[in-house]
Formats: sequence, C-alpha cells, structure tokens
Amino acid sequence: MSRYKLVIEYDGRDFVGWQRQDNGLGVQQVLEEAVKKFCGEKVRLFVAGRTDAGVHALGQTAHADLTKDTDANTVRDALNFHVKPHAISVLSVAEVDDEFHARTSAKERAYFYRIINRRPPLALEEGKAWWVPQPLDAAAMNEAAAKLVGHHDFSTFRAAGCQADGPVKTLGALTVGRLGEEIHIKARAISFLYHQVRNIVGTLKLVGEGKWTPDDVARALAAADRAAGGPTAPPDGLYLSEVVY
Amino acid sequence: MSRYKLVIEYDGRDFVGWQRQDNGLGVQQVLEEAVKKFCGEKVRLFVAGRTDAGVHALGQTAHADLTKDTDANTVRDALNFHVKPHAISVLSVAEVDDEFHARTSAKERAYFYRIINRRPPLALEEGKAWWVPQPLDAAAMNEAAAKLVGHHDFSTFRAAGCQADGPVKTLGALTVGRLGEEIHIKARAISFLYHQVRNIVGTLKLVGEGKWTPDDVARALAAADRAAGGPTAPPDGLYLSEVVY
Repeated sequence: MSRYKLVIEYDGRDFVGWQRQDNGLGVQQVLEEAVKKFCGEKVRLFVAGRTDAGVHALGQTAHADLTKDTDANTVRDALNFHVKPHAISVLSVAEVDDEFHARTSAKERAYFYRIINRRPPLALEEGKAWWVPQPLDAAAMNEAAAKLVGHHDFSTFRAAGCQADGPVKTLGALTVGRLGEEIHIKARAISFLYHQVRNIVGTLKLVGEGKWTPDDVARALAAADRAAGGPTAPPDGLYLSEVVY
Repeated sequence: MSRYKLVIEYDGRDFVGWQRQDNGLGVQQVLEEAVKKFCGEKVRLFVAGRTDAGVHALGQTAHADLTKDTDANTVRDALNFHVKPHAISVLSVAEVDDEFHARTSAKERAYFYRIINRRPPLALEEGKAWWVPQPLDAAAMNEAAAKLVGHHDFSTFRAAGCQADGPVKTLGALTVGRLGEEIHIKARAISFLYHQVRNIVGTLKLVGEGKWTPDDVARALAAADRAAGGPTAPPDGLYLSEVVY
C-alpha cells in the first residue's frame, strides 16, 4: 500500500465542483474513475479544499492510497491519459508517507481572484475572470483588505451551509493589486470558511466602486453577521492556487 | 458619412476565422450583423489581417463607414451589445478621417505565440496555447529566430494559397523567451505571408527539441522552398496582438 499526493489543475466551468453531485460531474469523480481505469482499484480521493462549481484550480491537492507500488510519474501520466477529454490535468504526483493527509496536513491554502476591470466585455477570458465594467480603485480595495487580515470572527463572510467548526479563522494575508486592466486579489490562510474569499471579494468591490470606505469593511467584519457583508463574487475569477504542507 | 476604426478581441476557437465561409461563422460576419442590428446599415468591414480558424486576437483592427455620425463610445457599446453571445469584444472605437484604411494604412503588425512547455497536458489553457511536452531550449530557439530577422525571401515559411504579391518580406523582430513553463514567441513585421508565423514557430520548435541547429534554420530560409521548412504550428497559440498605424 502506497500513498500518493496529487497536485491538480482544472477548469471549474466544466464541473459542478470538486465533489460528485446529483446534477453533474465532479472533479473527484473523474479522477477516481481514472484511477479505476488505470489500476482497477476503487479508491477514494481526499482533497485539501473542496471547490464550488465554476471555481478553478492551479494547485488543488489530493491524496489516495494504491495497493500496488507504482512509480509516481507513471501514476501522473496514466491519470492524465484516463481523465481525457475532461479539463483536468494532474501536474505532479509524489509518493508520501502514510501520515500525510491532503486536508489535515495542509499548513496554508492560497487563492487568487482575477477581476478584469474594463468597459468592453470579455472575449478571451470569459469564465476565467470577473468582468467589472465600472472603474475600481484598487488602492482603496487594498487598504480595505488590510482590515480583514488577522484572527477574527468571519461570520460576515461565511455562507450558509459552511461545515467549519466555527466562524473564527486567521486570515494570513489579503492583498489587492492592479496590473493594467487586471485586478488580482490574493488570499492566504490555514483554512477558509465556505464562500469566504468570494464574499470578501464582493465586499471589496463595493470599496473599489467608492460605495463603501475601508472603515465600512472593518465595521462589517465587527458585526459578525452575513447580512452586514457585501454580495458574493461569481466563481469565474477564483483560483485555488496553492496548498502548502 | 463617418469612418470608424475598431480594435477587436476574439477567441478564435469559436470561428472559422475572420472571414465568412461556407462551413461556419466568421468574426467579420458577426460584427457586420451587429452593425446592421445597431443602425440598420449593411456595411462592409475592412480588416488589418485576416486570421485563420482557431487564431485569437487581442488587437485586431478593422474599419467601417457609417452614414450617421455617432459618438465612438456609443458605437463600441452598441456593437458589444449586439455581438452577444459570441466571444468577440470591441475594445475601442475611434472616429478616423477617410484616408484611414485598416489594411493599407497599417505600419506594423505584431503577433505572439504561446507554447506551454510541460509534461502534464493543459486544463485551463486548452485551445489558448500549444502544449509541447518535450523540453524545449528557448535560448537556442531565440538564436535561431535571429537568423530570420530582416529582408528575405520567406518562401520556406509561406503556405500554399498565400495571396501576397510575392514571398519577399521584412521581418522586423522575432524573439523567443521563457517565463516559467511558458515560451513566448513575438513577431513584428509590416505584413506577413499566409501561415508565416505558424510555419516559423513549427520550425523553431525543431531547434528547441535539438533536432535542428540555428544554422539549419538559416539554411532552410536560404532554400526559399516550403519543403525545406518545419511543420505548421497549430493555431491555438497564435494571437494577433497589435496593429500599429
């Protein structure tokens, strides 16, 4: 029995999310079926962070146990062969010891969120970024973001249905920067609440538009009430970029 | 009568190319129909460079004459409304004098070509870059590229069906650089022959793999014979990035 760590890229538009659901295909299901096709084993994949429908991954991480010891690169290439034609790519596979767990061993998760801030709609990046036509002040958004960093009750940014033990989390970093017409929001934490990043981005957009001040964001956080926060940003711009172990 | 210059972005995967064809939708056709819906006029669009099926544009440029004088930004927004749901975005519209011609006034055309050079296949960038799994030496490709810059008979890189007057062109710049797993090839010229960039990229890839030397590329150019050149790279990685007037 060998345990393998998989780093995975996928285009979230093609899936109902990481998890299998009644209404469509999950990334997990495609990968578990690829393992079955490759070695005949029915395995379960454990994942660092479940993503929602439409959310992309550049560095999702999962682990699985296989009975037969196989070269890690062979596992990677075989899985990539068998996931075809789905928009999933196994970037790397490494053999790990059996203490390793994709979810509980993770020390940090990193997401980024892409906004394309321009008047014309998106042709090439449709589904890969949030199109915001009204001009956004990225510097003000960054100032507001700084108010959220640290150890807080994040109920204001926690969606219903969140399975975390409680609303208190430590947001390690949250920055907003502009590069031309793109605004990138980067977030790092040990773990996140359900929809936390998208709810934060939807709130920071209000600051970018000048409807809210950075202090309004601090007050919304202090209210510890989802009703005090801004709307949920669409999944299109969200990427799970890295899981650190 | 007013003449308008349009700068256009599109995802080439959704079209048979710029031009209308019997077998599918052209970008030109969608835009001409959008003009018709907007102002009722049947206009013809003149374009800087016809692109093939699957080739993308970040800065394609065209012009059209409209009978009624309309604010340029209104034209842009109206066209973007009427091209929906196609993957076309009119980035800017400007009123120009009637000496301006999108094709004949162009002083330079710039293309870039994206290769993603890694063993795992593409999930997020499928159709937007050429996936090359075997390691490529970008420095050697750049050395070979330098051999093609200048005023030459480019018959070796000219596809059958090219409508240019002759095979002699001046390639103003051709560079190859690597950023992580991406290799970017940038080409600038007053004008290009049919498939010239894709035929050059397919040849440079042979150098990147170590199958050809930079001197082999110089010899292939000197042969002035398409049979002496490398294969045609796929359209997926090609972007018409800018037309300079």
